[in-house]
Amino acid sequence: MINKKQLLSERPKGMPNESTWSFVEETLAPLKEGEILVEQSHVSLDPAMRGWMNDSRSYIPPVGIGEVMRAGSVGKVIETKGDTKFKVGDYVSGWGGVQQYYVGDGNGFVKVDPNWADITKYLGVLGMPGMTAYFGILEVGEIKTGDVVLVSGGAGAVGSVVGQIAKIKGCRVIGIAGGPEKCAHMTEELGFDGAIDYKNENVISGIKQHCPEGIDVYFDNVGGDILDAALIFIRKNARIVICGAISQYNNKTAVQGPKNYMSLLVNRGSMKGMVVLDYVPKYSDAMKQMSQWMAEGKLKAKEDVYEGIENFRDTFYRLFNGDKMGKLVLKIKP
Amino acid sequence: MINKKQLLSERPKGMPNESTWSFVEETLAPLKEGEILVEQSHVSLDPAMRGWMNDSRSYIPPVGIGEVMRAGSVGKVIETKGDTKFKVGDYVSGWGGVQQYYVGDGNGFVKVDPNWADITKYLGVLGMPGMTAYFGILEVGEIKTGDVVLVSGGAGAVGSVVGQIAKIKGCRVIGIAGGPEKCAHMTEELGFDGAIDYKNENVISGIKQHCPEGIDVYFDNVGGDILDAALIFIRKNARIVICGAISQYNNKTAVQGPKNYMSLLVNRGSMKGMVVLDYVPKYSDAMKQMSQWMAEGKLKAKEDVYEGIENFRDTFYRLFNGDKMGKLVLKIKP
Repeated sequence: MINKKQLLSERPKGMPNESTWSFVEETLAPLKEGEILVEQSHVSLDPAMRGWMNDSRSYIPPVGIGEVMRAGSVGKVIETKGDTKFKVGDYVSGWGGVQQYYVGDGNGFVKVDPNWADITKYLGVLGMPGMTAYFGILEVGEIKTGDVVLVSGGAGAVGSVVGQIAKIKGCRVIGIAGGPEKCAHMTEELGFDGAIDYKNENVISGIKQHCPEGIDVYFDNVGGDILDAALIFIRKNARIVICGAISQYNNKTAVQGPKNYMSLLVNRGSMKGMVVLDYVPKYSDAMKQMSQWMAEGKLKAKEDVYEGIENFRDTFYRLFNGDKMGKLVLKIKP
Repeated sequence: MINKKQLLSERPKGMPNESTWSFVEETLAPLKEGEILVEQSHVSLDPAMRGWMNDSRSYIPPVGIGEVMRAGSVGKVIETKGDTKFKVGDYVSGWGGVQQYYVGDGNGFVKVDPNWADITKYLGVLGMPGMTAYFGILEVGEIKTGDVVLVSGGAGAVGSVVGQIAKIKGCRVIGIAGGPEKCAHMTEELGFDGAIDYKNENVISGIKQHCPEGIDVYFDNVGGDILDAALIFIRKNARIVICGAISQYNNKTAVQGPKNYMSLLVNRGSMKGMVVLDYVPKYSDAMKQMSQWMAEGKLKAKEDVYEGIENFRDTFYRLFNGDKMGKLVLKIKP
């Protein structure tokens, strides 16, 4: 059987390009004892992937040169050998990488139920982005009723869930996103109280207008100038959740540090980083809660699905040029 | 009676200069009902004063143009009128400003005991800097036995106390300061485990050498490149206490934001600001504890006293050029 896959062929400086990945075909070897073969249906595209490509100390080792590009995935077990964690016919989600077939011991995979939710939901709201949103806003952001919550990347996979959870918890929520379509999505479909279009508005004026009393929690997915704008408006004891800095991931020069960070002192604020992998033991509880909210119509999740594993690079660009709505997913076979 | 005083005459851009303050003499009016007259012996010089001169939103209003320069002070009540908070002969500490005599209702002043400690100690280890150190390292830094604690401005009024408290609590303490004399002071007199001389050493190499396993708590008094160096070496769940950013206070351009702040994400670290005024209700407990440590010889405090209220500006510069050791104090009369 032939396996098509995207290998990391060199570490990009700045934005990945044609030399970053190589698309190869390989004949699969027969399974070894204890291995499973997963036919992958979808892979997840997440901003964090850019960080995994850098050869620097981080929360997980970088993807090695010549290795399959790391990615979350969902698929179906079609073959097993010997004593295995899953059986043929199981649907599973895990770190299958950007390839058609995963072969291995299934370590890090979990069984998912395609009847319970669309399988792509396990890459989005019930997967890493959803878990990031859930634990980030509740445990790191420590939101409480009446808080003013600002979230950047508010129409994205993480931000859209952050804002909706904050609404469920009785907060006032303002989202920042690029373009009128995303802004309308936040206020009209997701129920946010306000939206700031960073591509067409001055973000500082926007925050001033929407948050006249200041911000209690800022959930940051983007870094850069928007983080600095938020810092201007934090209230006493505000919490800033550092979830990502998508504006900085493809920098060729140094990251832009938040020049307004001394606002943390004046306002006794905190800025705290998070890595979702720390919450794995609590995922099942969170998934249960999120599913309930979805069933009740309080939580909506949208996937933006593109097709063809050969189109991985072009799809990847959408993470950074903003040309997607909600969770970006690649369907392996058209 | 003549009162000599330093008024803020214009808001400096960058470092204060000859036009920043005006030194004036004024005849004191007779006391009004409820007022006290304090003959001030010493005023405190603290980096925070630079912030109070800027016309920007902060934790206290800026000093007004034409007003006496705000400063902590100690002195003796020499006259009162009517029903007053203090009586003649009382030694008091409060916000007397940079002047010979304070006249007012004594709001914000506390009685101090010159037999209990040298009166200048109430501007240092038993005053604002000491309280900042105490609550900053214990309540914001949340140190515990075995933590590796890095402190910048380690030979200064706040940093020297931070490091000694961390030692008392069983931490490993590395101080950063400028010049061999200050470094020797930290390791030989204050008992720090190591010292990094930022004027003569590469700080990144220094931290690497002294903290091979990384840093649990970084107490930041300076900001700039040293904050960025510390961020490189934080361990999982590290706390960064933002107490000040002396390297940035006289900037004419934008503050240098910490470009390595994404290390907070990777290491699940937090960066938290503090303002000592929040802890006023707990000052007396802290002073009692600090006095006990001093009596036991575990806590040493050094004041660097200069003389003459007319020399205020030249003395003020020492805060920023590093030409002082320990708490900077100005004795009003030579």
